[in-house]
Amino acid sequence: MNTHDHLVGILGGMGPAATAEFYAKLIGRTPVTRDQDHLRVAIWADPTVPDRVGAVTGGSTDPYPAMLAGAKRLRDVGATLAVLPCHTAHAFLPALVKDSGLRFLDMVDETVAELERRAGTFGSVGLLGTRGTIASGLYQKRLQAARLGVALPGESTQVQVDLAIKKVKQGNPQAAGVHLDNAVRTMTGIDAPLIVLACTELPLAARHLSTVRSAALLDPTDLLADAVVRQCLPSRTEGKDVPE
Amino acid sequence: MNTHDHLVGILGGMGPAATAEFYAKLIGRTPVTRDQDHLRVAIWADPTVPDRVGAVTGGSTDPYPAMLAGAKRLRDVGATLAVLPCHTAHAFLPALVKDSGLRFLDMVDETVAELERRAGTFGSVGLLGTRGTIASGLYQKRLQAARLGVALPGESTQVQVDLAIKKVKQGNPQAAGVHLDNAVRTMTGIDAPLIVLACTELPLAARHLSTVRSAALLDPTDLLADAVVRQCLPSRTEGKDVPE
Repeated sequence: MNTHDHLVGILGGMGPAATAEFYAKLIGRTPVTRDQDHLRVAIWADPTVPDRVGAVTGGSTDPYPAMLAGAKRLRDVGATLAVLPCHTAHAFLPALVKDSGLRFLDMVDETVAELERRAGTFGSVGLLGTRGTIASGLYQKRLQAARLGVALPGESTQVQVDLAIKKVKQGNPQAAGVHLDNAVRTMTGIDAPLIVLACTELPLAARHLSTVRSAALLDPTDLLADAVVRQCLPSRTEGKDVPE
Repeated sequence: MNTHDHLVGILGGMGPAATAEFYAKLIGRTPVTRDQDHLRVAIWADPTVPDRVGAVTGGSTDPYPAMLAGAKRLRDVGATLAVLPCHTAHAFLPALVKDSGLRFLDMVDETVAELERRAGTFGSVGLLGTRGTIASGLYQKRLQAARLGVALPGESTQVQVDLAIKKVKQGNPQAAGVHLDNAVRTMTGIDAPLIVLACTELPLAARHLSTVRSAALLDPTDLLADAVVRQCLPSRTEGKDVPE
């Protein structure tokens, strides 16, 4: 495919701020000199999709039909490659790929691949995400397969993560930063020198950390954006990343 | 219509960073307590649409067919209300409304309405935008009809505005801020105490002004986002704005 043959579909709205942030990152990480060099993008953002965490952990209203409807919209407008900037929703990704026929890049796979490239430079991987992401084992299974150690937050740290996510969703990333700061302090105090922000709201909170710890944080949305650019613009990214 | 009966269509990509910024503003300006309170949004962002400024000022490749194709995509996925976060492209808005059958909120109308509400609190309105926006008279005609004075940049100031816009499009809003600063200094030095950022790239540059002049700047994308929220969620915005 040539540069602009791809139409990138973003299945978003889960939550909306994380979707806008992902889109801004994709734009910022695309090498361009003018508008026309950018990727064609279609976004379907339906925030009324029922809560993903509740569905994964407690069997509340199934969000899948709304997610599938969105994927079909993206397919119908011509998306050739899609992404889902929500970790918890990745629990539904295999079904979504099968039922929509859309090709998705998997944010968890991209993250685990990056961690494998960095293997040996850190001890365990600290995992901060929703209770749904943690409970589903989404990351743990793939980290284990890659023989990478993982450190999970205890209950009091998880409460801080939950609050950070909630505050971003409520439009208060500053308050979210305080809670994320508490969680990061605890995790780095245990044994996890590298922390994965495994919820797409957390990078928005991370901008407001009281102390700069960016070296200790890995943001999967950066990796997903880079993967999209590599797929769509291979000639412009050659040699800039480890080839897949 | 009830809260979530609306699907907001954003005809974007002109340029992409301005689209992401508008979407983030719409999210930030929607009163919510959880994801599900947000508006349903579909974005069509095709940055390969030919240059709008060239078309308005010099008859280069016509961007209209690509814009119309995008509007039709938004209509076909069910958009009930649409916006076009690009001032220069507003020169094509009447045709777009007619040919697509989509209802659009007009960013220029929203801005002029706000200026009319503020009439008497400022002298002339300083207008910073692309050469296409200025040449089309898009704002000047409506400001004149509203009996509001307008101050246009001279050539050397326009060169600074052009550079500010170009730098945002190239992913360098810091450099853009320096050029916008030069333009704002000149305009406020003449006679325009209130400056309209009549290009959707300029608010991204305005974040990087060396001196805080936010009181002197009016950002039409804020007004457009507020208009969308008022239209879609009248019960949540009652009394918060002058009714239309």
